[in-house]
Amino acid sequence: MARQFACSSAHTVAETKQGKLRGYQLDGIYAFHGIKYANAKRFQMPTQVEPYEGIRDALAYGYVCPMLNQDVPNMEIMVPHRYWPMDENCQYLNIWTPSLCPEARKPVMVWLHGGGFSSGSSIEHVAYEGDQLSSYGDVVVVTLNHRLNILGYLDLSSFSDKYANSANVGNADMVMALKWIHDNIAAFGGDPDNVTLFGQSGGGMKVFTLMNTPEADGLFHKGVIQSGVLDGFLSGPTDGKAIGKALLEELGLDESEVGKLETIPYAVLAEAYNKVSPEVEKAGHYIGCIPTANDWYVGDPRKVGFTEHAKTIPVMIGSVFGEFDFTPAIPGRKELSEEIVLEMLEKKYKGHTSKLVSQFREAYPARPLIDLLSVDPFFRIASRDFIEKSVQERQAPTYSYLFNLDFPLEDGKAAWHCSEIPFIFHNTDRTALYNIPGVSDRMEEQICSAWVSFARWGSPSAVCLPKWPACEPGKEYTMIFDRECEVRVNHDAALMETLKETDPKLPFLPAAEGEEDEGFFLH
Amino acid sequence: MARQFACSSAHTVAETKQGKLRGYQLDGIYAFHGIKYANAKRFQMPTQVEPYEGIRDALAYGYVCPMLNQDVPNMEIMVPHRYWPMDENCQYLNIWTPSLCPEARKPVMVWLHGGGFSSGSSIEHVAYEGDQLSSYGDVVVVTLNHRLNILGYLDLSSFSDKYANSANVGNADMVMALKWIHDNIAAFGGDPDNVTLFGQSGGGMKVFTLMNTPEADGLFHKGVIQSGVLDGFLSGPTDGKAIGKALLEELGLDESEVGKLETIPYAVLAEAYNKVSPEVEKAGHYIGCIPTANDWYVGDPRKVGFTEHAKTIPVMIGSVFGEFDFTPAIPGRKELSEEIVLEMLEKKYKGHTSKLVSQFREAYPARPLIDLLSVDPFFRIASRDFIEKSVQERQAPTYSYLFNLDFPLEDGKAAWHCSEIPFIFHNTDRTALYNIPGVSDRMEEQICSAWVSFARWGSPSAVCLPKWPACEPGKEYTMIFDRECEVRVNHDAALMETLKETDPKLPFLPAAEGEEDEGFFLH
Repeated sequence: MARQFACSSAHTVAETKQGKLRGYQLDGIYAFHGIKYANAKRFQMPTQVEPYEGIRDALAYGYVCPMLNQDVPNMEIMVPHRYWPMDENCQYLNIWTPSLCPEARKPVMVWLHGGGFSSGSSIEHVAYEGDQLSSYGDVVVVTLNHRLNILGYLDLSSFSDKYANSANVGNADMVMALKWIHDNIAAFGGDPDNVTLFGQSGGGMKVFTLMNTPEADGLFHKGVIQSGVLDGFLSGPTDGKAIGKALLEELGLDESEVGKLETIPYAVLAEAYNKVSPEVEKAGHYIGCIPTANDWYVGDPRKVGFTEHAKTIPVMIGSVFGEFDFTPAIPGRKELSEEIVLEMLEKKYKGHTSKLVSQFREAYPARPLIDLLSVDPFFRIASRDFIEKSVQERQAPTYSYLFNLDFPLEDGKAAWHCSEIPFIFHNTDRTALYNIPGVSDRMEEQICSAWVSFARWGSPSAVCLPKWPACEPGKEYTMIFDRECEVRVNHDAALMETLKETDPKLPFLPAAEGEEDEGFFLH
Repeated sequence: MARQFACSSAHTVAETKQGKLRGYQLDGIYAFHGIKYANAKRFQMPTQVEPYEGIRDALAYGYVCPMLNQDVPNMEIMVPHRYWPMDENCQYLNIWTPSLCPEARKPVMVWLHGGGFSSGSSIEHVAYEGDQLSSYGDVVVVTLNHRLNILGYLDLSSFSDKYANSANVGNADMVMALKWIHDNIAAFGGDPDNVTLFGQSGGGMKVFTLMNTPEADGLFHKGVIQSGVLDGFLSGPTDGKAIGKALLEELGLDESEVGKLETIPYAVLAEAYNKVSPEVEKAGHYIGCIPTANDWYVGDPRKVGFTEHAKTIPVMIGSVFGEFDFTPAIPGRKELSEEIVLEMLEKKYKGHTSKLVSQFREAYPARPLIDLLSVDPFFRIASRDFIEKSVQERQAPTYSYLFNLDFPLEDGKAAWHCSEIPFIFHNTDRTALYNIPGVSDRMEEQICSAWVSFARWGSPSAVCLPKWPACEPGKEYTMIFDRECEVRVNHDAALMETLKETDPKLPFLPAAEGEEDEGFFLH
């Protein structure tokens, strides 16, 4: 049935500090796409947008940041993508809101996209569209693009003061977006004093790196870290001398010519970086593409602790059951004989199998044993550590969740990396595989309600969910989102301890000498 | 509410001549994305895909053809885009169908995308998604990618016999797709003996160039040409000596090295072409990117007439009221005084204004006079000529339509190029601006029904529409799709004759010496 639409300079215009913007309204939700929140020269800190006269259109998503490599289209049924024209001048944000009344003061939810710090965009996943979350939750939803990979995170500070913070300008873009939100979101019905960051994978890492960024203090008030805590991903204080030198040499430049890196075409720069960086990394050096501790960024809280301000931010942290298990679903997996399953398990877990089997059955009694092959150790082990540290060191509450749904692919496949996102955004109807009659609507209501409650009040409690306490020292209360949601305490502690002993290897880390590189890229 | 989804090797697999494909089913419609229908080496004719064992996934759209230039995101509210990873190995098609029963023999509708012969893709427009047309019309919908621009249409035949048909390999890809459909569509519930091509803009041109391509005879049975007839776009017989030489020279190659054009990166080739082609074109030479008459392609029917086989194909031809008028909507356009409007008209139409005003009022009595500024002469004049020629020379029926809706942008804006597409695909709910309560649902039913009827029976008659006769010599019966649909005879003949006298200039043709190039690109 036809939806209610309006787009006019009389009815769908919002006034920002820079000038007026024309968006559109659909079924009661106003949308503004492609708002320029900052400008920036390559490797340099972002600057404010100049004021302008008249009305500008905010009716098209803005450029997304160029990537180091083009994506290969696959797994769309599991993680449906959107792509967009690219340009490094990519500081754009999108807003969805139920109101343009400056007194409405609705909670603001700012989504930070995944893709490590190297790829992705504010519209990469089909489910990133903010209208249905805004409508269901009566909240203002913001999504944003910022500089990525070498454009956002290549430390050239050794070569020129001009690039003093080039290692973090991607994060600096986000801080500029938060300042823009602080200054302007009231005009979109939002409350600048109630801003929640939420992000998945790299987006989750962005949440906790921004918590430890003093310039962002006071610009956001809560954080949700979805599948964003992973060991061995973020580096400590280091410098970009080695990668910078290799890059300059590859491009036939000497150190005094570092300024030329600003003007050579991105494609040429990316090609050179892709060529030299594996060697530099093998030699044990930093190669960029992640935030680096310096005067501007305090550093990874797991290494340097939380800032005083970061301790005041309520956080929700979680991951999903299967994460990096993107292998094809196994037809008839529930009917396989225990003998065959044990054989498969032994191949993967060697001598640890029997211990793992009993611990897995305790942690996940409803799951078939074969799913022990899929259970994620990477995010889960690191998240448990992060949660415990957070509870020990911070006064603000820390909530834990685990997304444990089985999806209708073949006879069923355990939740993979990114698979909770359509539920958060109330967009399961836009992602084919996420429609499970009798199940997905209810779970969507439960999950989306929890996120919205957390954004509104700092607690994910919701009438449609069991009581959900914050974690305590030594006691991880985890909301397990599944066909029946329940809260359990330290439900997989033993399982994770044993999995740690198996020394699991991240599929996307560079292959060791002689090993095949599977080319997996973090989303 | 949760939709019905299935994806498994037991229930959503179709068997083609090459092998098995796994798709998915959503709310009763099976979808298969990214089916490889051919392979091809650069500039060479496509070849069949090799048979394979096992089941392949058809769950992700295939690569789209690389473009000569990246799009600039704008006008999304009017023409919402989708982008996708690019590779010249782009011979992929997508299928949506209500049945996998080989005896179902449902009508097959094959969509040929627009973008001239240079850009676009099977998924470029948000509304190209085929599921809702398949469901509403009980038809099998196919969309496809093929080689474009210099990859699909650069004549190198002067340089090597290997490239004898390089001027038309983009069209040859489509013929391969039609062969694949002929051989395999029964496995997707389709009738290989009832295939309708429909396409818009460049896609419409593809329909009539394929009508005059003997290798495609018998592979399709009806054609819909939507905003696809335009004068001065397709060239006659010519050759690519000049552009080929300029390209080789720019790349530092001599003619004996033409084979190197096969292996240099596309980006380098495209950059060289973009650099040299304006000069070559100014010198009056062909520069490719359009089908060229030769042994394989008979030529533009307007120049060389229709083939005997083309005379047997029922066609439907139409355009939209405003086409290339993409200028911003004028707030309050209906309230402007006649004096002001006449002044604006006189600026555009000089001495022709008063004649045009009375002819416009006769042709479009319900439209405000200011819309005379928007009325399209380009497609409409050429379509009228094409229709008359078609009626005179062919025995199969020719139907005419004009899409005349006013859209709710500001106080209203007349239909622009591409704006009928969401109605054809029954996708207005996916395109915000196309939702007009009380209007769009009914028009969608009328338009979609007409297209489906035409595909099913060769006549666009539908119970929800007035009687719609085929055109006769000198009598153009035109279905005017609007809030109230009606058929009129030669309704704008006089208006178009006068507009022809004003010698209107296509906005996307290369700028003449000294003029500003507006950079408009045909979609």
